[in-house]
Amino acid sequence: MKTGVAIVGASGYGSRELMRILANHPGAEVVMATSRSGESPSVAELHPSLRGRVDLACVPFDADRIASAASFAFLGLPHTASLEATPVLRARGVRVIDLSADYRLKDAASYADWYGHTHSDAEGLASAVYGLPELYRPLIPPAGLIANPGCYTSTAILALAPLVAEDRVERRGIVVDAYSGVSGAGRTPKPAFHFPEANENLVAYNVGRHRHTPEIDQVLTDVGRRTPAGGPVEVIFTPHLAPIDRGIHATIYATPKGTAVEHDLLDLYRSFYEGCPFVRIVDHPPGTKDSAGSNFIDITVRVVRGKIVILACLDNLVKGAAGVAVQNFNLMTGNPETTGLI
Amino acid sequence: MKTGVAIVGASGYGSRELMRILANHPGAEVVMATSRSGESPSVAELHPSLRGRVDLACVPFDADRIASAASFAFLGLPHTASLEATPVLRARGVRVIDLSADYRLKDAASYADWYGHTHSDAEGLASAVYGLPELYRPLIPPAGLIANPGCYTSTAILALAPLVAEDRVERRGIVVDAYSGVSGAGRTPKPAFHFPEANENLVAYNVGRHRHTPEIDQVLTDVGRRTPAGGPVEVIFTPHLAPIDRGIHATIYATPKGTAVEHDLLDLYRSFYEGCPFVRIVDHPPGTKDSAGSNFIDITVRVVRGKIVILACLDNLVKGAAGVAVQNFNLMTGNPETTGLI
Amino acid sequence: MKTGVAIVGASGYGSRELMRILANHPGAEVVMATSRSGESPSVAELHPSLRGRVDLACVPFDADRIASAASFAFLGLPHTASLEATPVLRARGVRVIDLSADYRLKDAASYADWYGHTHSDAEGLASAVYGLPELYRPLIPPAGLIANPGCYTSTAILALAPLVAEDRVERRGIVVDAYSGVSGAGRTPKPAFHFPEANENLVAYNVGRHRHTPEIDQVLTDVGRRTPAGGPVEVIFTPHLAPIDRGIHATIYATPKGTAVEHDLLDLYRSFYEGCPFVRIVDHPPGTKDSAGSNFIDITVRVVRGKIVILACLDNLVKGAAGVAVQNFNLMTGNPETTGLI
Amino acid sequence: MKTGVAIVGASGYGSRELMRILANHPGAEVVMATSRSGESPSVAELHPSLRGRVDLACVPFDADRIASAASFAFLGLPHTASLEATPVLRARGVRVIDLSADYRLKDAASYADWYGHTHSDAEGLASAVYGLPELYRPLIPPAGLIANPGCYTSTAILALAPLVAEDRVERRGIVVDAYSGVSGAGRTPKPAFHFPEANENLVAYNVGRHRHTPEIDQVLTDVGRRTPAGGPVEVIFTPHLAPIDRGIHATIYATPKGTAVEHDLLDLYRSFYEGCPFVRIVDHPPGTKDSAGSNFIDITVRVVRGKIVILACLDNLVKGAAGVAVQNFNLMTGNPETTGLI
Repeated sequence: MKTGVAIVGASGYGSRELMRILANHPGAEVVMATSRSGESPSVAELHPSLRGRVDLACVPFDADRIASAASFAFLGLPHTASLEATPVLRARGVRVIDLSADYRLKDAASYADWYGHTHSDAEGLASAVYGLPELYRPLIPPAGLIANPGCYTSTAILALAPLVAEDRVERRGIVVDAYSGVSGAGRTPKPAFHFPEANENLVAYNVGRHRHTPEIDQVLTDVGRRTPAGGPVEVIFTPHLAPIDRGIHATIYATPKGTAVEHDLLDLYRSFYEGCPFVRIVDHPPGTKDSAGSNFIDITVRVVRGKIVILACLDNLVKGAAGVAVQNFNLMTGNPETTGLI
Repeated sequence: MKTGVAIVGASGYGSRELMRILANHPGAEVVMATSRSGESPSVAELHPSLRGRVDLACVPFDADRIASAASFAFLGLPHTASLEATPVLRARGVRVIDLSADYRLKDAASYADWYGHTHSDAEGLASAVYGLPELYRPLIPPAGLIANPGCYTSTAILALAPLVAEDRVERRGIVVDAYSGVSGAGRTPKPAFHFPEANENLVAYNVGRHRHTPEIDQVLTDVGRRTPAGGPVEVIFTPHLAPIDRGIHATIYATPKGTAVEHDLLDLYRSFYEGCPFVRIVDHPPGTKDSAGSNFIDITVRVVRGKIVILACLDNLVKGAAGVAVQNFNLMTGNPETTGLI
Repeated sequence: MKTGVAIVGASGYGSRELMRILANHPGAEVVMATSRSGESPSVAELHPSLRGRVDLACVPFDADRIASAASFAFLGLPHTASLEATPVLRARGVRVIDLSADYRLKDAASYADWYGHTHSDAEGLASAVYGLPELYRPLIPPAGLIANPGCYTSTAILALAPLVAEDRVERRGIVVDAYSGVSGAGRTPKPAFHFPEANENLVAYNVGRHRHTPEIDQVLTDVGRRTPAGGPVEVIFTPHLAPIDRGIHATIYATPKGTAVEHDLLDLYRSFYEGCPFVRIVDHPPGTKDSAGSNFIDITVRVVRGKIVILACLDNLVKGAAGVAVQNFNLMTGNPETTGLI
Repeated sequence: MKTGVAIVGASGYGSRELMRILANHPGAEVVMATSRSGESPSVAELHPSLRGRVDLACVPFDADRIASAASFAFLGLPHTASLEATPVLRARGVRVIDLSADYRLKDAASYADWYGHTHSDAEGLASAVYGLPELYRPLIPPAGLIANPGCYTSTAILALAPLVAEDRVERRGIVVDAYSGVSGAGRTPKPAFHFPEANENLVAYNVGRHRHTPEIDQVLTDVGRRTPAGGPVEVIFTPHLAPIDRGIHATIYATPKGTAVEHDLLDLYRSFYEGCPFVRIVDHPPGTKDSAGSNFIDITVRVVRGKIVILACLDNLVKGAAGVAVQNFNLMTGNPETTGLI
């Protein structure tokens, strides 16, 4: 039997990908889609690519109505909006997978710092599970609220986790140099994303100030908690915009503790991610195109003049958003982890 | 000695190209740039690519100030705004090259129909010279007001003029199927031009309703006036958006009067455009890239199953806007036609 | 139970898409993949995006081996190579879906003309069914050999079929102006497809000489056979290359018999394609992006100055190749037509 | 009076850019262009964009013929080919600006290591001046042979030179993470540069093994020679391919000696590059598009968690190849440094 799910905030790219994936999912049925606009257009009007696949009108958000029809809600809302929607859905027993940043930072003060908004749902924050299955798989099945990770975040964390967990690198001074496709910036037109500006252009932004920074630090610090002497992880993170629709390429530089040997490191990665169907440890430098449209992350490792260089790619809208959300949904509903995602 | 010129409405792509070209022009000096915004930023802030080339603050529009410093004004304004600026500049003796559509349609009623605005400058309209040098070269040197042609327009007109002038094709039912780079849509962000929407996409718009239609009809009808029995030209024009920065590709289908032979047609074109340094009649199908960044238009001709197929490419911002404006300026100032443009 | 299928010629883009689609198909299992190269690399090495989805080594072509393991073979071979592989597979009872052009033209002389190669399999040619389900659905289930249509071809045919079938347009002088993404040119690097040449470029090629021309003519003439007075269809076809990965946009111009009214035509199209799950008749001009990655074709119709203008888009690798191949496979195996394709 | 120049190896992108720039240069005239192919096509056939600008047939290489017509030769040859052409041209008094890598590495053994070829022109190597005017301006005017720098190289060197010269950073462990447009890979079609592979893709290559590495090390070590205690510079260099035609974006991470303050560093850069018309020190993160088609390099500096992050962009074909070659030519001929380049 299919689980009824609601898409809350259906107009963005993440929600479009969710509905594309779920249209093919044998264990889920999208029964409702909400959008802010008063006009309640249909999903097909919001996303012409979904015409003939998802036949739903959009309705305004109504927690009771959602609870009566669906046992799961995926929130494709801007941050702060999820803070409003989540408690009322949870109170009605709806399990929530939140694609915004609202429940990712465990420290409410840090949230306030980075997002300029007081966190208003301490209970939700305390109960939220960070939805990165490769690291937190056991916590996900029983969760009522999933904080679905950020796209840069998942790339950087999965690329670094084996090294941090095994205490193989210095935890300060890790450089995360990453490029994202423009869909990562959302669907609202702005000058920087106007085609004649973004096309044929490579440009950094929010250098050292991107909101995924504290999220990367937090999770990697947690990953390294078994060797606390290692201390907190602190990355130097530079995001850039590249003229592609989707995909993140991260090139990461870390200083090894002791000698680093490429094939040993590749073995470490393969062993660390055994049983993780969406992590592909590869020998060649991966391209963003290899994982575009899929839920895979591709990772390889090099040693250059004594530094460890990790190359990692994923699709920001899939493994970085909607795909991992479905992966979480699969674990929460007892479906095989890969259902609808291969 | 350099002629002082003012750029009125400096923030758009056309004006950027103008200033790029004029920075290299031995006979012109940009002495003033105006912009609507109250903050009067500099040209370098508006257009980072011009930093180190054009060192000017932007000032608000002031006809007296322009007249005191410049003998020429290039108007990079939206349509209807040129209707306001032109008379006051002309009254002060400033020669105007208007890149908007405000003085292109000779019939004020047609202007009102297509642009939804009553034409308020009958005198200007009467005196304006349509600035397509390949067709109206003798009229340009003495002109006080140039209506600089549209980008699709110049492509279609130059591609068809030899056939219409020589009465070689039927004048109704000519198909103009054209694709434009996104810079042709201007610099204002809108959903259709948002990178993740426009990238990897080909899409038609304003099918049969684009405002360049009456302009193409008008000029080609004028070109064919020597054989009035041919009647008015009426094109079926379909514009499309393509994911390139700049360039227009038009593929045009016309029905010959009598038999059409490719090499005869190529000869006709070469002969018609003799002495036109920016028209390149080529044997191969031209690509938009061949003329990108330049003031050339490339044209070739084929005969397919009895139809004449004309392929034409130009850069919408140069030969389709700023470049032809400078070509007009050269003719108006007695410079060689190609100055600053090769 | 899953049907075993072999992919013959696994290295191209069409075969990659086939394997991507079939990896998700509940009624098919790819049991073998062949490639020409002596090294027999794996599918994952040929197509990094398939790593973790398709776990197969490539083997050399061997008809016996294929017949022992698979009841279906999809041929992703260059034309003329399919002429060799098909008879030996058919002789062993393997049902063949050929993605090349080898069995599309019913007239062997026409094949020799357009492909420069004598047709060597008259029996196959006689039995082959043209695999466009929207027009030939009843013939497909029992077929032993499917000639899978060309990508430009399907776009043009499906866009014109309702008008031709209902004798609503003149059959000569139909203009098919079409742009294709570069994947349509195959995977072999050539100067025209070198990124710095193809990017930011729009260019026509094979004007009036493209091999899909006789295929479009043949099928549309067949579609119009009920009103033979209408005569054979003859299109004027201009293909262009656009800097996108995938997608075809066709803008088609036809002269109506009698008066054409937009909403009547849209009704005609909706009625003609009733029960066709992959044809979406839309009101807006479709973009190639709407159908990218999917098996849909989007079509709309306009009337401009007395001409009918049809706009149609599909993904050249899916609805134009691998997707329609699976659609045929579904019909041949009794699966629902949409299995694996929505 | 114009200086006669020859373009040796006219078919590549660098030579195309050279001829585009020189067509506009008041002090130079391209009098000859050579190409390897026996057919001697014209420049216009090699580069359709130059039709109407450069009207020359290509001729086979002939040192005597070059020397009789030109006093300068720009070599657009692959490496090792310049080793053959240079001595015979120098012997005839022709001044050479070599765009290949053949005279860049001062150590012939290092050249042999990185390029797999014994250096055969010790005399040339000894006399060659490294043509980066911002660092070696005094040496350039009298030079007979210029080793024109690599594109990644110039980006990295100019971005780091102020810090190294002033001994403000540790010289080991400097990370140079850089992305290049595909024109940097040359004009020969290869799978990685096939449009459907390179488009929508970001991918690293030659990680830690790119041939620009020793060139960056060598020049920066030379820049830091005044404080030899600082030791040799050793960069960790990761090149990537991005789907743009032209442009390099480098993001560089260095560890400061002492405390680093952003505005002090920006002051240092502005002061270091005073009098350098093509270096723009900017406050915002520069995009590759800002300098595309121009001879500018844009640089800014940030301090993030104690690391210095330098962002630098230039056009690989202009400031990274043909533009700096003309800048060198200007200095060698007594023209203003910016002639033909603004």
